[in-house]
Amino acid sequence: MNIVCCDLEGVFTPEIWINVAERTGIPELRITTRDEPDYDKLMKYRINILKKKGLKLKDITDVISTLNPLPGAKEFLLWMRRLTQVIIVSDTFIQFGMPLMEKLDFPTLLCHSLVINDDGAITGYNLRTTDPKRKTVSALKSLNYRVIAMGDSYNDTSMLLEADAGILFRPPENVIRDFPQFRVTTEYNQLKDIISEELNNNNL
Amino acid sequence: MNIVCCDLEGVFTPEIWINVAERTGIPELRITTRDEPDYDKLMKYRINILKKKGLKLKDITDVISTLNPLPGAKEFLLWMRRLTQVIIVSDTFIQFGMPLMEKLDFPTLLCHSLVINDDGAITGYNLRTTDPKRKTVSALKSLNYRVIAMGDSYNDTSMLLEADAGILFRPPENVIRDFPQFRVTTEYNQLKDIISEELNNNNL
Repeated sequence: MNIVCCDLEGVFTPEIWINVAERTGIPELRITTRDEPDYDKLMKYRINILKKKGLKLKDITDVISTLNPLPGAKEFLLWMRRLTQVIIVSDTFIQFGMPLMEKLDFPTLLCHSLVINDDGAITGYNLRTTDPKRKTVSALKSLNYRVIAMGDSYNDTSMLLEADAGILFRPPENVIRDFPQFRVTTEYNQLKDIISEELNNNNL
Repeated sequence: MNIVCCDLEGVFTPEIWINVAERTGIPELRITTRDEPDYDKLMKYRINILKKKGLKLKDITDVISTLNPLPGAKEFLLWMRRLTQVIIVSDTFIQFGMPLMEKLDFPTLLCHSLVINDDGAITGYNLRTTDPKRKTVSALKSLNYRVIAMGDSYNDTSMLLEADAGILFRPPENVIRDFPQFRVTTEYNQLKDIISEELNNNNL
């Protein structure tokens, strides 16, 4: 049986931190895993900036609640959910992800979580596990699923490598160059064709 | 972080085979895992009856498409999906489950699959793995999830035993008697109270 593991940001939604950076006017928050592949370093940097600026969780989730899924994302996701099972695997935090899950009709989201103090400030984060995207694929394979994975960035490549089929969606040039084994797509209709082909060639 | 693993039939939907038995007028199909815990024996028996009666997949899915989720199930499930992540783990087949998933707004369903021949007849089935409910919980625990599991029947008890918290929903008396360690509920509002308590006591 097939199951699809999808990244969230860049695939179904805008990049959360970049939008938070723009809407809060804090350009330092623009840095993403595309710029800093060491996620732990990246997060400590972000939390430190929020602390300096006095921004709390609600300030960030208020911004996130104004974001919308990428055009066509909800329809594409629904198309997939009618045909197969889908799990979104993201390096975001559950507190950030949920306003966007609501707009996508609550697909299953596996991600991390933030530590919030009594004042509502973000004081830390729990990385649920190291290399969670790859491990999620591995866990699903241990349950005898054939895993199709899609993502847009470097931090998705261990997931795509572990999967039975890996697809890049709107990746930057360096990811395309470094991972020539993955099919590259830029439109949901292309993704539909590839997913259909994968499902048809590898029945339920 | 928490995740909830739920059985499907008896928890969110009617028992599929019992309803197929009633609506097709074939009482032999009424037998369920409550009567025959050996699932492989049960399925071979069912497939043999369908073959004898000349019933194909579409005859069965046409019946399933007329079923509705249990009253309050969709609302309860949505309530959970707003608060935490939910995966439905069932011993049904994906071909049978999907018409019901549509009526529940496409939660993630992990289950088995039927083998269908070119004439549309059910010729066999693929058990994705042995003891899939327990193994699903185990796989999620390996990803550092704290798992809350709920089910109604004997075939859910290995899942409930493996989980960090196990809840029985409308179980038969013999399951209550044999598994006194699990909380027993009969209404979704009771489930809401227990899930809320579990989530509040064990933060994100």
